Amino acid sequence: MLQLHFAPNTISIAVAIALNEGNVHYEPIQVDFPNAEQTKPAYHKINPKGRVPVLTTPQGRITETGAILDYLCATAVPELMPADAFQAARARELTHYLASTMHVNHAHKMRGHRWADKESSLEDMKAKVPETMAASAAYVETLIDGPFILGDTVTFADCYLFIVTRWLPGDGVDIDAYPRLRAHHDAMEKRHSVKRAYADGMLTT
Amino acid sequence: MLQLHFAPNTISIAVAIALNEGNVHYEPIQVDFPNAEQTKPAYHKINPKGRVPVLTTPQGRITETGAILDYLCATAVPELMPADAFQAARARELTHYLASTMHVNHAHKMRGHRWADKESSLEDMKAKVPETMAASAAYVETLIDGPFILGDTVTFADCYLFIVTRWLPGDGVDIDAYPRLRAHHDAMEKRHSVKRAYADGMLTT
Repeated sequence: MLQLHFAPNTISIAVAIALNEGNVHYEPIQVDFPNAEQTKPAYHKINPKGRVPVLTTPQGRITETGAILDYLCATAVPELMPADAFQAARARELTHYLASTMHVNHAHKMRGHRWADKESSLEDMKAKVPETMAASAAYVETLIDGPFILGDTVTFADCYLFIVTRWLPGDGVDIDAYPRLRAHHDAMEKRHSVKRAYADGMLTT
Repeated sequence: MLQLHFAPNTISIAVAIALNEGNVHYEPIQVDFPNAEQTKPAYHKINPKGRVPVLTTPQGRITETGAILDYLCATAVPELMPADAFQAARARELTHYLASTMHVNHAHKMRGHRWADKESSLEDMKAKVPETMAASAAYVETLIDGPFILGDTVTFADCYLFIVTRWLPGDGVDIDAYPRLRAHHDAMEKRHSVKRAYADGMLTT
């Protein structure tokens, strides 16, 4: 059986939602972020990067949200992958942007120590997060056909986008300024996959 | 015919190498980074993010290196994608890590203004790059079966890794401290795809 190491409200919940979309039976394992379990040697044996998600498969462990989602589409939830290569590229383009730009912008609020040492630098980074996250939201807004990214059908990329846009209010960005992001969020909230993530305590309001 | 917007020595050359691996005929279009063409309105019509690569296909444009490489495997260079889903996941896990962590570490040297405003912050970020890039190199070293990432067969992820590891010396990291990265680099340098990238002026020593 698949295992998923997760922490509530983090990007790892995109994987849980994708699994829920396919009603895939799996074992969830919560990593205790409040007690910094992800920084301890025991967890580093599972993921030396000290992050979530980790998907444990019969063949071994996979990290990186985008790679895990692609694997799930190939093995367990094929309905989340567009059949057309160009539409699949659009979905992957968005998840790569979310991973390498928008999530990185977000991380400069609380994880600035990854890239700088001085307290003044960390404060400077933190102050810029509302600006960079608003710019990312404005860009992503242009990529959504509506209500989901590619129109009426949910893809793996929607699971990813839903989690990232949930961070906007905490990053000082009003999601109501982006009508397509707002509609995307609301459409995702109605899905059984997301409702189950709330019921499982993986998402908290 | 496919078009590729590129700039020499940037991550866009991973796409050129993948195209060369399949001997795919395409039109290369150089973006004039020295004159900041990527920041101008004309280029923003091609890519509002002001980055390279952009692959122009008969169906439209694709950005984000990982998404483009996946698209090329699906349409033009299938030999670069592992047939086994778990091995494909290993290759994608690495490209996601390179995009969202190692390339981001590298970007804090010259592009710190993306995430902070004060000159002191930018200097602080720049000073930390040798440390973060060395940590990334040490981690990636553990993922390589050798000589290529998954053993004897080149994948799309090798094209990506080759470009990122070329940045190590400039970032103050000695690649010789990582025997698998060194062997990977040397094995890639011998391939016709990389030799052609040099011959085309896309890579400079």
